[in-house]
Amino acid sequence: MSNLMYQGSAQAFTHHLKNLSAILRVAAANAKARGIDPAVLLGARLAPDMHSLTRQVQMMSDNAKGSCARLAGVQPPVFEDTETTFAELEARIKRTLDFIRGLKPAQFAGSESRAIVMKMPIGTLSFNGADYLNGWALPNVYFHYTTVYSILRHNGVPLGKMNFLGQVPGMQMTGKIAKMMGAKPGAKAKKKR
Amino acid sequence: MSNLMYQGSAQAFTHHLKNLSAILRVAAANAKARGIDPAVLLGARLAPDMHSLTRQVQMMSDNAKGSCARLAGVQPPVFEDTETTFAELEARIKRTLDFIRGLKPAQFAGSESRAIVMKMPIGTLSFNGADYLNGWALPNVYFHYTTVYSILRHNGVPLGKMNFLGQVPGMQMTGKIAKMMGAKPGAKAKKKR
Repeated sequence: MSNLMYQGSAQAFTHHLKNLSAILRVAAANAKARGIDPAVLLGARLAPDMHSLTRQVQMMSDNAKGSCARLAGVQPPVFEDTETTFAELEARIKRTLDFIRGLKPAQFAGSESRAIVMKMPIGTLSFNGADYLNGWALPNVYFHYTTVYSILRHNGVPLGKMNFLGQVPGMQMTGKIAKMMGAKPGAKAKKKR
Repeated sequence: MSNLMYQGSAQAFTHHLKNLSAILRVAAANAKARGIDPAVLLGARLAPDMHSLTRQVQMMSDNAKGSCARLAGVQPPVFEDTETTFAELEARIKRTLDFIRGLKPAQFAGSESRAIVMKMPIGTLSFNGADYLNGWALPNVYFHYTTVYSILRHNGVPLGKMNFLGQVPGMQMTGKIAKMMGAKPGAKAKKKR
């Protein structure tokens, strides 16, 4: 039986957190190859009043673990935002993945109608699980993930859309596109994206 | 009864296509206010080998209508990519919305297990509907949507995360955050995003 809430959150975020790790490894290697201080990339922004690469990674982690926890009906773990290197960000992503992998698919069953309440010092947001996933969790996770990718592309890191999509779970391929989609992180991209 | 495939595709994309329209209206008004040729923003890119703003909008439209069509089991309509102004992009978004709104929720029922086959000159991609939605449609739609937002932010257009998220369907708010989240497009953003 399908468990669309689990697939749409825990499975999808696990996939993209692994892609995020791979993308950050390409960035770290590229900084080394170009003789760039990694801190330059980690502090890069697309606008002065947008968040840095480091913060975008932390926020993707927060949104992924937070939303999976809420949908599964458990308390989201709190991670301190202390990372200052690519290696520390990778460790943060690994901790995030470990948490999400510890949740059972059965915990997400029926979560589309579960009441989700986010209490913050400045107020409260509440939704049912389906509206929370579609209108809050997914847009936020993808916002920060895409922004990480865009910050690195803007700074000349050799990435392509295939790094962003990763090896799409459950996708079967035939023809030339199979080779393109199987491109490893850092491989030369074939077209604009 | 919930129809998670419909909610996760047609409903979510309708919401964000409306947000996209609102964001483009802010951009067009801002170009006018700053005396910038709109073509400058429409041709802006985050990297020389990434697509322009215009193309990102077209690709969000294509991914939204294409994925809803495939999940609903109908042929995706083909739109020529001829837009060269903000007004024409708005019309493109409207046509996209009209198409998606013409699809019935019942057409999406059970689509999580429907075979989705994308035939292209360079090969074929196939998935079941759930894997297609989570691993292809959603990442692609959000990739192009976020990139539109980021191109405009990078060029100084006054937008905030609230413009990106829009008025989240089904979300209830209390406290100060209700005022923040209700901020109209173009309103001064309160914090980094």
